[in-house]
Amino acid sequence: VIEHDAVSLTERFRAPRRLTVTALDGMPLVAPGDALAPLIAAALEASAIAVQDDDVIVVAQKIVSKSEGRLVHLADVEPGGRALQLARELDKDPRMVQLVLDESTEIVRLGQGVLIVEHRQGFVMANAGIDQSNVPPGYALLLPEDVQRSTAALAEGLCAVLSARVAVIVSDSVGRAWRNGTMGQALGVAGLPGVVDLRGDTDMYGRELRVSEIALADCIAAAASLVMGESGERRPVALVRGLEALAAGSTPERPLTREKTRDLFR
Amino acid sequence: VIEHDAVSLTERFRAPRRLTVTALDGMPLVAPGDALAPLIAAALEASAIAVQDDDVIVVAQKIVSKSEGRLVHLADVEPGGRALQLARELDKDPRMVQLVLDESTEIVRLGQGVLIVEHRQGFVMANAGIDQSNVPPGYALLLPEDVQRSTAALAEGLCAVLSARVAVIVSDSVGRAWRNGTMGQALGVAGLPGVVDLRGDTDMYGRELRVSEIALADCIAAAASLVMGESGERRPVALVRGLEALAAGSTPERPLTREKTRDLFR
Repeated sequence: VIEHDAVSLTERFRAPRRLTVTALDGMPLVAPGDALAPLIAAALEASAIAVQDDDVIVVAQKIVSKSEGRLVHLADVEPGGRALQLARELDKDPRMVQLVLDESTEIVRLGQGVLIVEHRQGFVMANAGIDQSNVPPGYALLLPEDVQRSTAALAEGLCAVLSARVAVIVSDSVGRAWRNGTMGQALGVAGLPGVVDLRGDTDMYGRELRVSEIALADCIAAAASLVMGESGERRPVALVRGLEALAAGSTPERPLTREKTRDLFR
Repeated sequence: VIEHDAVSLTERFRAPRRLTVTALDGMPLVAPGDALAPLIAAALEASAIAVQDDDVIVVAQKIVSKSEGRLVHLADVEPGGRALQLARELDKDPRMVQLVLDESTEIVRLGQGVLIVEHRQGFVMANAGIDQSNVPPGYALLLPEDVQRSTAALAEGLCAVLSARVAVIVSDSVGRAWRNGTMGQALGVAGLPGVVDLRGDTDMYGRELRVSEIALADCIAAAASLVMGESGERRPVALVRGLEALAAGSTPERPLTREKTRDLFR
């Protein structure tokens, strides 16, 4: 149940007129145990960026996972019967399939070499977000154990080390139904509303808006993915500037993922 | 069949380090028959923006449709038997349902008051993209007759009137499977590749990238939607600056929408 408060919804969030999206220079390779907040603070300084309140820092899931030691040595994975069978069907590495099964609650679609699952953390995604790109050969990288918790902790760390009220999005590149190509999408959000609820707002004719919820965090993650790149650019952090009053907009909270019962594609 | 040429793919497109996304001031309400290129050129001038080569101009589908006279008076729509039945099932206006059926080739999902179809132009979307927000009461607004043709024509007009090699994306706000909230998405693209093909590119360990196609146009449309807003802000045009060598990247061409046979959610 979502509670609405009495404040006009447009007072809580207004589209800014101008945004800048900047990839940080100088992020080192991240190793297990590294604290990300000081590394990001150093990269901001190397990029000559003085952080401001309401800046949004978008961080690739990959470096959050690496800092948390979520690398798995594939040689240590023992695929079970189900994984072996699915791997044959899909022409995949059975150890990868076992990891996907371990990380998910449900197979959503299966076919064409693709295994789309509901991740334990609720995301519907291919291969449970497990990645082998930019990961040492023979290893696979899982999503953070609890990406929302990681995001909140990173936001807290960054606010402290930067002495500013920044928001944080942990993002991943994902494929989508119906559309070609991948785009950045939010896995965790802290300090800004993941979804902005405009229900009750009206259009220029006074008619209630049909489109009433904006995927704010996903739009920001998509914008950031344009400067973060895919192809070994090693730019796992971007800063998005221009949004306002983010903290004010963060209630009521709406989840990033659709409730299963409201999803026609499950 | 997609042909790959011999040029290194990363030479064709590299993620820029910095982007700016700016909504234009001074766009008037658009009426049927209005030529958009001069209106946008005037709004750029009013916004004190001197256009450069490789700027991307994102234009809301709504004003393209309005300029093309795609408003339909609902009183003129005669719903047939199928529309009447679906309208009862979905608790919708039967005239709207008739318009949706007229605009689509196939119903993809039906339920929970939602009618998701394949539009004649290939997009999978709710209500065939037909909109009643920011449209005069009693009317509905259809997508442009051929949005790709409209986009190409607008790009040609803008390049001429602005004396610059700009790219154009015509965008709409759409809902998505699995995720809450709407985001900007590209319906038509001219002067830049809608999808950037990185297949053959390698990661920092020399491994071929798993994520191999970037939804460039959709990411740009999503970024632009952050400044264009939903809620009657009347900012139907945004300029995205910072991408490079767009024209060089525009081959090989990949469609925005997945082939049906490669889509597990159809």
